[in-house]
Formats: sequence, C-alpha cells, structure tokens
Amino acid sequence: MKVNIGSAYYPEDWDNERIEYDAFLMEEAGVNVVRIGEFAWSRMEPEEGVYNFQWLHDTCDILEKHHVNIIMCTPCATAPAWLCKKYPEIMRLKADGHRGTFGTRQHTCSSSVTYRHYAHQISAKMAEELKGHKNIVAWQLDNEIGHSSMGNCHCPECQNNFRKFLKEKYGTIQALNKAWGTIFWSQEYSSWEEVELGYVGQKYDSTRVLDSLLFWSKVYVDYALIQADGIRKHIPDAKIGTNNLSGLIDRYDMYRKLDFAGVDFYPRPNMEKMARVCYYSDLYRAILPGKAPWILESATCPGSPDRNLLRFFMWNFIARGHETICYFHWRSHLSGYEKNHDTILNYTGKPRGRYHELARSIKEADTILKKYDLPLPEVETAVVLDYKDHWNYCQGFWERWKEYEAMNCLAHEILMKNGINSDIISSDDDFSKYKLVVIPQMSHFRKEVAEKIRKYVEKGGTVLLGGKSGIFDGNAKFIPQAGPEHLQDVFGISIEGYYPLSTPEVLDAFEPREIHDGGDIAVTGKLNGKKIMGQPSNHVMEIDSMGAESLLTHDRGLLKGTPYCTENRFGKGYAFYFASTYLDKKTYKELLLHIAKKAKVKTVILPEEVEMISRGELTFVLNHNNKEVSFDTDVKGKCILGDFLKDGKFTLPAREVCIVDTKAKTAKKK
Amino acid sequence: MKVNIGSAYYPEDWDNERIEYDAFLMEEAGVNVVRIGEFAWSRMEPEEGVYNFQWLHDTCDILEKHHVNIIMCTPCATAPAWLCKKYPEIMRLKADGHRGTFGTRQHTCSSSVTYRHYAHQISAKMAEELKGHKNIVAWQLDNEIGHSSMGNCHCPECQNNFRKFLKEKYGTIQALNKAWGTIFWSQEYSSWEEVELGYVGQKYDSTRVLDSLLFWSKVYVDYALIQADGIRKHIPDAKIGTNNLSGLIDRYDMYRKLDFAGVDFYPRPNMEKMARVCYYSDLYRAILPGKAPWILESATCPGSPDRNLLRFFMWNFIARGHETICYFHWRSHLSGYEKNHDTILNYTGKPRGRYHELARSIKEADTILKKYDLPLPEVETAVVLDYKDHWNYCQGFWERWKEYEAMNCLAHEILMKNGINSDIISSDDDFSKYKLVVIPQMSHFRKEVAEKIRKYVEKGGTVLLGGKSGIFDGNAKFIPQAGPEHLQDVFGISIEGYYPLSTPEVLDAFEPREIHDGGDIAVTGKLNGKKIMGQPSNHVMEIDSMGAESLLTHDRGLLKGTPYCTENRFGKGYAFYFASTYLDKKTYKELLLHIAKKAKVKTVILPEEVEMISRGELTFVLNHNNKEVSFDTDVKGKCILGDFLKDGKFTLPAREVCIVDTKAKTAKKK
Amino acid sequence: MKVNIGSAYYPEDWDNERIEYDAFLMEEAGVNVVRIGEFAWSRMEPEEGVYNFQWLHDTCDILEKHHVNIIMCTPCATAPAWLCKKYPEIMRLKADGHRGTFGTRQHTCSSSVTYRHYAHQISAKMAEELKGHKNIVAWQLDNEIGHSSMGNCHCPECQNNFRKFLKEKYGTIQALNKAWGTIFWSQEYSSWEEVELGYVGQKYDSTRVLDSLLFWSKVYVDYALIQADGIRKHIPDAKIGTNNLSGLIDRYDMYRKLDFAGVDFYPRPNMEKMARVCYYSDLYRAILPGKAPWILESATCPGSPDRNLLRFFMWNFIARGHETICYFHWRSHLSGYEKNHDTILNYTGKPRGRYHELARSIKEADTILKKYDLPLPEVETAVVLDYKDHWNYCQGFWERWKEYEAMNCLAHEILMKNGINSDIISSDDDFSKYKLVVIPQMSHFRKEVAEKIRKYVEKGGTVLLGGKSGIFDGNAKFIPQAGPEHLQDVFGISIEGYYPLSTPEVLDAFEPREIHDGGDIAVTGKLNGKKIMGQPSNHVMEIDSMGAESLLTHDRGLLKGTPYCTENRFGKGYAFYFASTYLDKKTYKELLLHIAKKAKVKTVILPEEVEMISRGELTFVLNHNNKEVSFDTDVKGKCILGDFLKDGKFTLPAREVCIVDTKAKTAKKK
Repeated sequence: MKVNIGSAYYPEDWDNERIEYDAFLMEEAGVNVVRIGEFAWSRMEPEEGVYNFQWLHDTCDILEKHHVNIIMCTPCATAPAWLCKKYPEIMRLKADGHRGTFGTRQHTCSSSVTYRHYAHQISAKMAEELKGHKNIVAWQLDNEIGHSSMGNCHCPECQNNFRKFLKEKYGTIQALNKAWGTIFWSQEYSSWEEVELGYVGQKYDSTRVLDSLLFWSKVYVDYALIQADGIRKHIPDAKIGTNNLSGLIDRYDMYRKLDFAGVDFYPRPNMEKMARVCYYSDLYRAILPGKAPWILESATCPGSPDRNLLRFFMWNFIARGHETICYFHWRSHLSGYEKNHDTILNYTGKPRGRYHELARSIKEADTILKKYDLPLPEVETAVVLDYKDHWNYCQGFWERWKEYEAMNCLAHEILMKNGINSDIISSDDDFSKYKLVVIPQMSHFRKEVAEKIRKYVEKGGTVLLGGKSGIFDGNAKFIPQAGPEHLQDVFGISIEGYYPLSTPEVLDAFEPREIHDGGDIAVTGKLNGKKIMGQPSNHVMEIDSMGAESLLTHDRGLLKGTPYCTENRFGKGYAFYFASTYLDKKTYKELLLHIAKKAKVKTVILPEEVEMISRGELTFVLNHNNKEVSFDTDVKGKCILGDFLKDGKFTLPAREVCIVDTKAKTAKKK
Repeated sequence: MKVNIGSAYYPEDWDNERIEYDAFLMEEAGVNVVRIGEFAWSRMEPEEGVYNFQWLHDTCDILEKHHVNIIMCTPCATAPAWLCKKYPEIMRLKADGHRGTFGTRQHTCSSSVTYRHYAHQISAKMAEELKGHKNIVAWQLDNEIGHSSMGNCHCPECQNNFRKFLKEKYGTIQALNKAWGTIFWSQEYSSWEEVELGYVGQKYDSTRVLDSLLFWSKVYVDYALIQADGIRKHIPDAKIGTNNLSGLIDRYDMYRKLDFAGVDFYPRPNMEKMARVCYYSDLYRAILPGKAPWILESATCPGSPDRNLLRFFMWNFIARGHETICYFHWRSHLSGYEKNHDTILNYTGKPRGRYHELARSIKEADTILKKYDLPLPEVETAVVLDYKDHWNYCQGFWERWKEYEAMNCLAHEILMKNGINSDIISSDDDFSKYKLVVIPQMSHFRKEVAEKIRKYVEKGGTVLLGGKSGIFDGNAKFIPQAGPEHLQDVFGISIEGYYPLSTPEVLDAFEPREIHDGGDIAVTGKLNGKKIMGQPSNHVMEIDSMGAESLLTHDRGLLKGTPYCTENRFGKGYAFYFASTYLDKKTYKELLLHIAKKAKVKTVILPEEVEMISRGELTFVLNHNNKEVSFDTDVKGKCILGDFLKDGKFTLPAREVCIVDTKAKTAKKK
Repeated sequence: MKVNIGSAYYPEDWDNERIEYDAFLMEEAGVNVVRIGEFAWSRMEPEEGVYNFQWLHDTCDILEKHHVNIIMCTPCATAPAWLCKKYPEIMRLKADGHRGTFGTRQHTCSSSVTYRHYAHQISAKMAEELKGHKNIVAWQLDNEIGHSSMGNCHCPECQNNFRKFLKEKYGTIQALNKAWGTIFWSQEYSSWEEVELGYVGQKYDSTRVLDSLLFWSKVYVDYALIQADGIRKHIPDAKIGTNNLSGLIDRYDMYRKLDFAGVDFYPRPNMEKMARVCYYSDLYRAILPGKAPWILESATCPGSPDRNLLRFFMWNFIARGHETICYFHWRSHLSGYEKNHDTILNYTGKPRGRYHELARSIKEADTILKKYDLPLPEVETAVVLDYKDHWNYCQGFWERWKEYEAMNCLAHEILMKNGINSDIISSDDDFSKYKLVVIPQMSHFRKEVAEKIRKYVEKGGTVLLGGKSGIFDGNAKFIPQAGPEHLQDVFGISIEGYYPLSTPEVLDAFEPREIHDGGDIAVTGKLNGKKIMGQPSNHVMEIDSMGAESLLTHDRGLLKGTPYCTENRFGKGYAFYFASTYLDKKTYKELLLHIAKKAKVKTVILPEEVEMISRGELTFVLNHNNKEVSFDTDVKGKCILGDFLKDGKFTLPAREVCIVDTKAKTAKKK
C-alpha cells in the first residue's frame, strides 16, 4: 500500500517556471498529492463573469507531468472584493450588530441566497473547466467551515431563515414556547416575529441558543452541499470532502453526506500529551466507518527547529489509519496573514532542512509500507460524542462547552493509558461491533438511542455512563422525572438531582481536578482488590440504587452512604455509571480496569505516553516521551522499523517509533 | 417570637396538583412564607390587555390552606416579548450605543414614560385582583433593581430627562460649568443640548459621571415608587419593600420610602470571611432603624454538598436581627438561565437531603425562639456609609469605587474583630445613640452633616475619621482651602494635600496592604503602651496639627516628623483622624482599642472568625472557622442551644453555634 | 550656562490675584519657564468667533514681571463643545464604527478639513494676539499628538484621503494589488472604492495596515504643521516644537520639520531600570542633531513621598543634555480627569514639601552650572530606530510591535551596561560620526540605506545587525531572494529563511528569554577568550556563510553546525550579524565587548544600574540603585557635586549623583 503524502500549494502566487521547479522538487521528494485552489477566487474570477482558469490548467498539467495528484478546492471561504462591494448584505453580521469587513476570510453569510448562488456558480464553473484533468483525485469544499473570527451570522436573512426553521420544527408559537420553556423570566413569545437568533455564549437565554446552534449547523451543511452540487453538476462521481469543521457543526451530519473526512491537525509536542494528539485521528477515523481519514493540514516542522518531529508524527498518523497526509504548506506566501506560517521550503523557495526531512520520511514510509496492504486499526471500544447533545448540554454556557469536551477527552485518555484504543463515535452509530461503549455524558436520551443501548447491553455489551446523563429533554430542559430517562432498569439506578460542588472551577480540557486533602467530597470502596479513595469534581449527582451494586460510595456530607459508582448486570451485559462530571484519573483508571475485565477488553500496561496500535499484522509502538522508555511486552514478531524489540522487551529512545510485523516468520504479502 | 422562614416559589412553572403537593411539603417543613410572581408578567398578561390571574388566585388559595403566607412581587424586571416588540424604544440603550435585546431581565429603560405606564398598570392590576387574599403579607417591587447586565440606560428619553434634572439642579448652563469645573480640557458647555449622560467608568469626564449617577439613582427610586403607587391604589396599607439594590442606587433613599429592607445574600463559606458575611446584615438592619431586615434570597445549601451550612447561616441571620428569611428557591426551573441554581427540592421535586435539613433547622429555630421575644441587636458603634459621597469619591474611576467599599468594610471588620458589633448608617442618621462613630471616608462634608458631627463630639461622642475626608465639594472638585471643611477645630488638624504612594495597587475589598520591610512609607508611635510601626497605603494625607495630639507620626521621607494619626479633645468628646486610605490591620486594631477605651465602648478579645452578638437576654456565639476554637469569656448563663459554655470557657466545634440565655436563672418569658 | 526649569501651568483655572502669587512663588523658587494654554480653547473662544484673550495677556504680563518665560501652546487637542456639536462629522470615528464622544481630549479627526480650518484659525489668532509678549520664548503644538483613547480615525473623510494617498503612491489599483500582495486570500481589489483603512492590530490584512499607519503618520504631521503655519503667519520666527508623539507617528519626520524636540517622561523608580530611564533622553537628543532636547513634562515627586527623587532625575536629565525641563504641573486642577495628578503645590496652592525640594534643586543646578558652558554629550555609538521599518515589521501584529521595541531597547541597554552611551538615530542619519552602529532589526533595506551602510563599513565603520533583517520589501512582503538584501557581500552571509521557535512567548520590552537547561535551541563558540553557550529566542534565522567567520554556531537540531553569529571584514570595517530576534543578555554582552574592541569603542566596567556620561569637562556619575555602590575608576578630577570620588574610587550612596570636573586642576571657564 501507499500513503499519499504531500502539501497544500498556492500556484496563484507563482509563475509557471517556478511551478515547474516546485513540481520537480515534489516529485524528487516523493510528494504525490497537493491541495490547491482554496483561496484563489479573485484569480479565477477577477471580475464578475470574467473567468481565468489558464493558470490552473497549466498547474494541473505541470503537476501531472511530475506525477503529482491534486485535491482541488472551492475558493468560497474568500469572497472577492468586487462581490463584497456589490452585495454588502452578504457580509457576515456579528452578534454585536456590526457587519464584518473585507480583509479576512469567512467574512460572508453562509445562508445568504445571493452568496450561495455565487458559491455554487464558482464551484460549478471550476468543475466544468477542470473536469478533464485526470490527476484531480478529490475535491475539498471551502476551508474550515464555521471557523470565522466574526462568529456566526445574525443578518436579517439568517433571522428569517431561523424563524422558518423553527416553524418547521415546532409548528406553532405555543409549541415553541412549551418546548423552550419560555415561561421563565416571561420570555413567552406571542408571534414568530419576536423570535431572534441567540448568540453563542448568550447564557441568559440558553434554550434559544441551542436551536440557534442547530440552525447554524444545518446552514453550514447546506452551504457546503451547494458547493458539492456545483462540482457534481459536471463531475458526477467526484470524490468530495472538506477539512476540519468547527465544533459549531455536527461533524457526523456533514461528513456523512460527503466522501471523505479530512482534518487539519497540528501537533504541538511541547503543549500536548499523547492522548490529545491521537484524539482527532480516532475521531475522524470513525466518522465514515470503513473509510480512512485524511490529514488535510499538518505542521511541517513540529518542535522546530531544535528537533523536527515530522517523521514521528507521520508514523503516528499512519498508525491511526490516515491514507492521505497533506502538510501546510509548500512554500511561504510572500504576503498576507499567513506568510509567517511554517512551511516546507520557506519563502526563499529552496530545498533545505525541512524539505530533506520530508523526503527522507516519505521514502522510509514508502519502503516499509509497499510490502503491506493494511486494514484500518480495529478497536474493541468506543467513546460516544454527540454534537447535538454537546450543545444541549452547554447552550450558551461556555464553561459547560469546555466541560463536555473535557469529559469526552478524559474518557478517551483513560482508555488509551490502559492500552485500549478506541473510536470516537456518534450516538447514531452501530454499537454492536464494540465490546465496550463509554458514554461520558449524554444529557438527553432520544428514545431510539436508549432502545439501542438497552438491546446492546441485553445482548452482552458493556456500557459505562457518566455524569448528568438522561436528565434533560432535547430542548435543554430538565425532565422532572428521575433519570436516566428510559434506562433506569438497565443501569439499576435512579438519578434524583445533582449538587454543584462548593468550589466550582473552570477546567481546561484534560484537566479534571485531582484529589486533595480535606474539605471536598470523596468516594470510597474497593476496585480490583485495592482500597479506593476517589475525588469526583464539578457536579455530583444524587442517586439511589434500584438494584445496581454500589462499587464506590460517598463518605461524607449530605450524600454520605449513597452510591457514587454502580454496576448493574442487565441481560447478558453490564451497565456501569459514575455520578459526577469528572473523576480523578487514578480512580477512573481503576474503574476502567474493572470494567474492561467484565467486558473482556484487553488492557495493556504501557508506560506513560507510549502508544501501541495494530493494523493487521503490523503493530506500531511510539514513544511520545522526550526520554527513553523500556517495558516488557507480549508482542512478538520482527521489527521492520526501529530495532527496538529484544527478548520480549521494548526499549524506545525519545520520540522514536517501532513497527513490528507480528506474522513476520510466515510470508510477507504485497 | 417566630422568624418567618421560606423560599422563593414559581407557581407559573407548575399545575395546581403539583402546587398542592408543594404547599403540603412546605407546611410539613415549617415553611410559612413564599415569595411569588416576580418574573411572571407574560403569564399574567399574555397579550396586551388580556389578563390571566386564575393561576395566581389558585396558588394563593392553596398556600393559604397550608398556612403559607405570601410576599407577592411585581413582575416588572421582565417585560414580555409583546411589549418589547411593540415599543422598541423602551429597550435599554447601552453606553456603547447598542440597544439591549430580549432574552434576559432588566432589559428595559427605567425612565421611559411608556415603560413606567405599563409597569404601573400591571402592578395596579395585580393589587386589584389579589387584594382579597389574606395570606399576602407583603409586596416586593421588581427584582434587584439596577442590576442589569446592560448597565444604565442612555436612550434619548434618559438623555432628555438628565438635562431636565441638571436644569433643575443648576438653573443655568453657566452654573453647571462652574459646578462641574468644565474649564478643564475645554469642556465648557454653551447650551444644554451639548450635555449628555456619562457612563459609569468614564474617568475622563468624571464630574459629569457623578451627576449621571445621582440622576440614575433617582430614576430607579421613582421607577420603584411608581410600582408601589400601583399597588397602593388598591391596597393602601400594603407592606412594600424590594430586594438587594445595586450599588448604583442610594439604598437609604430607596428603602426609606418603603416599608421593609430586603437583601439577597448568598454566603460563600469557602471564599468569604465572617466580617463579610455579617456586613450586609449590619447594613440592612440599620437602613430602617427599628425595623428588622429581611433576607429575600439566600443559598439553600452553602458549602454543598460535602457540608451543608444552611443551619449555621440561618442562626447567623437570626442573631443579626432578620425577621424573615426566604431561600432561593423551592424547586429548580426546568428551563432557562437559572435552572442550574441550587434549590431545596431539585428539579425532580422530591423531598430529599436539603429539604430535610431545612425542616430540621426551622424546627430547631422555632423551638428555641418561641420562648423569647427578642429585640433587635443593640450596638454602641456605627460605621458611616454614604452613597452620594461614595460616588463623589469615585466618579468614573472604578479602582476608587472599590477603594471606598474597601475602606468601609475594613472599618467594620476591624471593629468586629475586637468584639464590637456595629450598624452601617447613613450620614443623615442620628449619631447620638452611638458612643462611637467611624467615618472611614467622607470626601465632602455637607454643612448639616458637619454641624451634626460638631455637636455630637461636643456633647461627648467619639468620632474616628479617615483618609481623604472633607477636601472635596459636592461636585467632586477639590476645595482649595485646607480640610477637613467645617471641622478643622473639631479634629484639631489641617489637611493640606495628599500624596499617592509610589506603588499604587488596585486592592480588592478587605485587602489593605500589609506592612513590609523597606522602602515604603511608615508611621510610628505608641498605642495602648505598645510601640507601633504602621503601614498606611494607597493615598497619604499631608496634615498639620492645629492643636490635636499626634498619636502616630511619619518616620521617613518628605513627611518625616509630621502627624499621621491624631487625637483631639473637643467639648466632652474626642475626634480622631488617620491620614491615609488604608492602614495595616495590626495598627488599625491597636488604634481602635485605644479609641474604644476613650469612647467607653466595650471590646472583647475573641478568637479569629468567632462572632458574638446579643439580642436582649440571648447571646449568640458562632464559630466561622472550619476547626474547633476555645476561649475564656465573662458571658454567664445557660446554654439553650449547643452545650458549649463550661466553667467560663466556650469550646465550639467547627461551624457551630451556641446560644446563651444570660438571665436564665430567673424566669423565661414568652 | 543655565538649564531652564519650570512647569506646566493652567492660568485659566485661577484669577489674576492668584496668578500674581503663583508667579511670585515661581520666581522665588528659581522657576524661569512655564508651559501654558494647551487645553484652554473654550476660554479663548467661548463661542464661535467670540474671542477672549485678556486673561492670557494678563498672565503673560504678570509672568514677565516675575521673569518667567513662556512656552505657549495651541489648544487643539481639546475642541470645545460648540464646535463638536456644530460639526458632528469632525468627531473621531473608531475602528469599531462608533463615533467618539465629547468629554475627553484628542476626540476629533486630524485629517478633517473642517477641523484643520478651526485648528489653524485658533493657532493664528493666538499668535496674532500674543505676538507682542517678549517672554513667549517658544510654542508647543497641540498635546501628545496621536495619543487618543479612541485610536486612529476611520471617518469617511479619512477613508477618502487614504484612497488619495494610495493613488499617489501606487498610481493604479493593479500596482497596489501587486505591492500589497493581495493575491493571498483573494484580496485583490478591482476599484479604489473597495479599499478601506485597516485598523492597528488588524493582523488578518497586514500590508493594508502598514499603509494605513504610513497614512496616519502623514496626517498627524500635516495636522501639526497647519497649526505651525497659523503661528508663523504672525510670528515668522517663532520657535516651535511639540511633545511626546505617539509611536504611531514617525518622530523623525515630525520633529525635523520643527525647531525643538520635546518629550514627556515620567521616571517610575520602582518599576524601571536605568536603561529605560535614559532611553528617551538618548532618543530625543538625537532627533535634531546638535539641538538639545526638552523635557516638556515630568514627575514632580518620583518615588513620592517616602523618597522624593526629583533632584536625582533632574541631574539625570541634565547629564543627558536637556536644556529645558518642565514638570507637570504647578498646582492641581480642582476638577477634571487629571485633578489627582501629582503637582508641585497640591490643590491647596501652598508652598510645602515638593515646592521647597524643587527650589533647592534649581538652586543647586544653577550654582553648579553657571561656571560652565557644556556641549551635548558626545557618544561614539548609535542604535538605529526606524519607524517605517517598525511598522513594516509588525503591521497589525501587536506582539511584533512590542518585539521591535524590545530588540531596540535591548541593544541600547546592553551598550549602557558596558559603559557605552549611545544615540538612538534614524536610518536616514549620518553614520560616519559613530565608530559603531547597531541595527537590532531592519526588515527592509532601502537602496540608499544599504548603500550608506556599505560605504560606512568600507571606510572603517563597524555595524552589528540582528534578526530578521533585509528579508522584506517596503510593503512587508518577503523578498524571495536570500537576504540581507543588497548587503550579502558586506556581511558575508546569506539569510535563507527562519524558524519560529517551538515555545514562542510574548515578551515585554526588556525581557528577552534567558537560557535554561534542555530542550531549546542553543549556540556555542568562544568570545573574548571565554567559552560561550548562548540562547537565542523567538525567531531564529537559517543562514549560510558567504565568507564571514562564524563566531557562534548552532549546536543542536536541524540547524546544528550552521553559523549563528558572524563577523566579516569588509573594506576597512567590520560587519557583524546575529541570527535571531533576541539573544540572552550574558552572551549579548560578550558579543558587544568583542565588537567594541574591534570598533575601538571604549568600554567601562560599571556596576549594575550605575550611569556615567560626560559633557565636555564634566563627567556625571549617577547611582540608580537603592543601595550604596563602590567601584574603581580611571576618572580623574575634582568633585564639584557630591564628594564621592576618592583615591580613584567612586563610593556613591543610594540614588546619589557625583559630578567630576576632569580639567579642574587647570582653569575653569564661564
């Protein structure tokens, strides 16, 4: 197999002679794919209706000559000056009432009929013009949709569309009032005209914010699909994707209408732990099940320049299943906001240190991989991430937005640290292929999701549920009944309410509060034969057992003696629950080990910051530490990269990778 | 006697069956008062002129059946959507020129004739409808007037009213120019139309900000009274109050036009010291002399859930004189901004931990108190707080806004720590009932206030004055004569100017700078037979003695040898002064002890964070520490709550209360 | 000689009787100059066309009687209310689209034809009226031009003027597109009407910000000159200057069209090191070569009141060449924003501590200086500061704005710490009078500047160049060729690109990152016979030697073995380069000592925070420490102030000054 490796490239910056030289350098380095066109609208259509595609034709031809394939991008993130001047109403209207101004990107309204017309037209025009180029292997829609420095649009057209969206959803204003619970603070509406979009972070009117988020997510998806339609008008079988959606968009909803899931991910080795680095791969790999994810942007020199970790992270990406890796980007722009961005060639355009490092890394990867045809990594465990539920959970409260992310990342991290790789999946996905499903937080259980969980456990699956789950409806309102809705019997518990802890703190993702002496709430019990003293934090649920066994129990205060962490045998499976937002990592780990044993999920004792994952016969081991580590293993086989496995022991230098062919004694296949 | 204990309650959220059950639970718990109606305008008047009061009648009837009294609230903090849409000009206009939007509370203009019309009308309508319900024992106007997330209103109607206000105050634009001192930076006005409202924090044009603050305070008071008028139209003898005014309103001015002073106070046991907890009780108790203050909102589970301190703070409130205590609130809203607020029942509506804790606490209080008929606490000392002078002091400079508060709180705290309970009083109040009056800061002495101080001291009173007092006129301008204006002979000093210290720091309330080695200004002398080395901070006044004795003297720099803290015998009393904004707590304490002795005010050596206060024959002792404390005492009598006094020694566990009946050997009365 | 010492004075606040008394006090104290009129427009022209200058005539007469000279100021920073009301379009329009409001200063547009008309008219009127007063010795234009709390103006008139400015500069919109590099993000313009002013800090569209800054600098200079024209209409030979321009104005461009360079500088002894205190004197002294700089505002009591350092800093100012020193200000305003500012007399207007300290200091200075006629300090070294290049370097990125300043200040500081006093000069200045020129950063080399550097080195000069120099064009675009442009042969190097370091941090001026163990980039080599291990930070350049010797070399990572700091013999001189933004101070010091030796610049080993500078026969030594220091010296002569030099050793108490007459054994001249 071959992983496609290349970069973003901006031919609009250069003349053909230089493009020729760049293509030559690419071919020399083994670069076989570039991403082009994404911000070049003004070059393709300098004036309304006046098109210039010659430079793009030339570029495609030159690249083809050098065996470089193309991911062609629509340029719709950067509406040109003539369009903005002609239709000032397409400029994004910020929540504070100010119009966005020209001079950046994502400055236009995504629901504007006018802007959609032009976005469709340029996309279609590109496809019509470029359909003949065989080396265009895929299309990227727009760029990082939703990531606007101006926030979401609040223009009159958006306001009207929002009202239409609400009418379709609720039918009558009375139904909306009921669904939103507008009785609070006299917010009842008597006509549709009174309703306006909420802004993200508008905690005062939070159910309105939730529907605003759902509306904008739909707006962005539709906006992207209009560009896809433009392409498919002329290239019906185009392979279409996009890159790195904002958390304001339901990633599952968007990508599942497209052909591949692309992510822009820049590892920051001095700031991020292994789990964070792997999180996005595990997420994007599971968005389109069975389809390999693509890296559409990554750093050309992470850790630069004292230690270039490009090779290290390239192997990390490959180990986690990416089939295409595009770095950002080939050569510095001479002008503009991003001219200082790290690149492969630098602004002088010469092949120097980073270029040669890339070439070496590609060569190494090609050499190793050409002998194999690897499947995607197969994992036994999934962590559920649900965008709509994320918004339902936070609706306007930024600290809760971060909380939801932190709960999710923490579950993924704790799993990884015990040698369990996982997929990040949607609540709509098939659970049955996993032995263990972790749901760190699901504020609202749609009936069909609850039913799926019930059947999954009944048939032998294991679920771990956490926090404030099953106590809200789909409009971010509490349900007055005890939770978890639809699932009390499955979990054998009743959730009766919750307490905010006395010292709430805003936590960054990956930073749950660790246990400390005195004062705070604590839970005790035994797990894996060890005595446990645990520290829940942020919000703590008040629960009763309805049959579940209490693994950990509160040991002080109002909740003293009540269950905190429960285990329930249901059908052939197990349903676990822990009653807080966060849990200290040490206790969480012991809980996980206990659960994995019940779920028959294999755990591996790995040193801190060491990653192990398998694709078919190959097992990848990466040391994310800045120092050497050694550990015993039951992995057997032949090292095909990095001779670091000896006598049942791995000894990996700092930031090194080892690949073991576990079937190496038998035949190797192509 | 009986202290009324209950909660805020939102019947608009629930049906009659549930209200019936809630009322039953209330009665069971001993809850005898609820506060209702405050945000329910859209339910009372769903469309203009269409009223629905049946649900309120039903609620009143149900509550009456269960012997629960009602504080009925006007709903004017939450103008309904139909009103906001019909009259967009009533929406509050922020200082930055943006109109406030619907979806929060306090979003309307308080001086708008239109909005006042509707506010009066709904208040009158409520009174007309509900006057027959005997269990409505009081009315609350609006909610937390002045606390708007949008700040004060700057709409054209406010601007015009401000100009009218100024015309009445100054007569001519020339007089305004003179009073404001607009010669600085060419700010002289030639016509009224040129004058606009300043915004709070507009330090560049600060005298204008002062009159803007005075204007808005008046606007808010008038706005509240219009609601009161509506109620009195139909219930002439209604008992009317309001809750927790913003510091942008002259609390004395507002409450003294009403019947009771209510405060919303949420103790935060992990963040606040005892003095801060008691400050608001001491303030609200003195606003309407002789009338007990009411808690209209407080936490249902302070310190939750590891340690519920509801009972502890309930006793603190009772000890300091409250006659009604309403917690916030009964049961969680299912929707809206405040749905996560801590409550008694939680959103599931079941009587669980917090409910039972409340019931136990009420029962305990009722049992103890039924044998007594206690007067309000009687104190010998007062601290003067003057809102107009507060604004005169800060006018636009936020750091000085906090300074004024900090000076005030520091004086109250130092007194408490030496066993001296105090009232926080207005400069208009009668000083003669106190032995000692502390005026931490009074930038401007109105003639009548100065005259009162003179007579008070002459007749034997003791005053401690601090900081930058008597050096400004009523328009925040320096008076060019030496200060303190009108009172040089009383204090025996002349204030000649001041120096900002070399390292100014923005200080939080309760955080004066402590002394440290080297560099900074220091004062020395002897107090109570001890050598003193003190540390003034922030601003230091340059004073001359005109007869006063210097207790503490500067020991370095330009001020070396000049008096810092002075004592002057005047008539039969004493006038003390210390020449800085803040003073380190150790020195302040010694100064206080010296002064108290002269004023014949009893001081008590109490451990840190232990409170002792008497109401009639009962002495309340509360340990605010999270650990046990012991101390000797001359308190004698019988413990009627907490058997913690033995052989002349108190030994109180953490967060415990002890009540001693000091006349217990004689008869107990009802 | 005589240094003129006085203060700002606001006679519009006071009546003639008081002015008479003030003038008497001034004369008594030796004050011989005051700065008046700067904010008094509304007093001079209370209504349009109605003038009142009698009070100013009276003031001039009174001051003349007391031998006090006058710096008369135009009042244009404070447009009066009537003007703002009549022409609302002159109010400054902020970048966020909001109009500035009345009540501050600098609230009007500086390019407005209307406002310029009125500014010219009042300036001319003042000159016409006041030309007869002989004691008006100079004029100050406006006040601190460019320092507006509202930022630069974005009004339609500014937008149109900006387009005119661009048309003149670029001719065609195509040329502008090319110069700005608008191909990035499709920012190509098709008509002039599409182009709008960028705002400072608008990093997304940074080349536009650069031309906006250049435009506004020109606007401010023109705006000042229009006031100067008004004065010269009636007083053709008026001596005209202004005070303390904002960094948004090219100081060289502005002052070189005027007669003297004035600076407002307030030393903050607890916050600033010696180098920072001296920086502004060294800058303003070099702006108008051969003309002494003026202090137009300074603190009346730096370090107040525990230690008044007025005398200490007065000597610092004199040592560095100032011929006029005006403190701010005489007596507190009774009203307005600045009423709390430290002053000489305080608001009570009495001569007390600060007044007497000033009088003593003036007397001391007069006594010492009357025997001498000192030249300006003569220095052998210059540091180049170029405003246009500053903006070219940062254009919209605030962290880079600070970076440029920090690089510049760091060079000046390292020089001072090695006993080398320097001028801060423009890139247009004559280098030939210096032995060593340090260019910490010059992103773009204009051809004529490069040519000058080439000739300067060729003829024997020494240059030290740093950082990201010679790699940009004049529109903040990278040049695709290796740098430093035009000068590769002079420096013997080729700059091939750069790396951002892996842990970028935002640094305050004067705070380069110090070396620490492990991880980061490091450079090694030998300097002055010592082994060096240095720590570059922020950005590191990738360079090749083209003949230069490598003094320090990278020792790790991608750059391992490549040169970091180079020395090149070119003609009779030397060209040095170090390849990063910052360099740790220890290594920088060794590098400087090495270079100074080559350049034959004298270095002196001084203790930390001790300043030594000579004017003619006098050598000034100031101890900026708060403790005594001793050190050996080769300075010889007689102490004429402070008897602190004995037997070849200085022993200076804290914050003391010593002046040595190095020719004292021969004759003293007048």
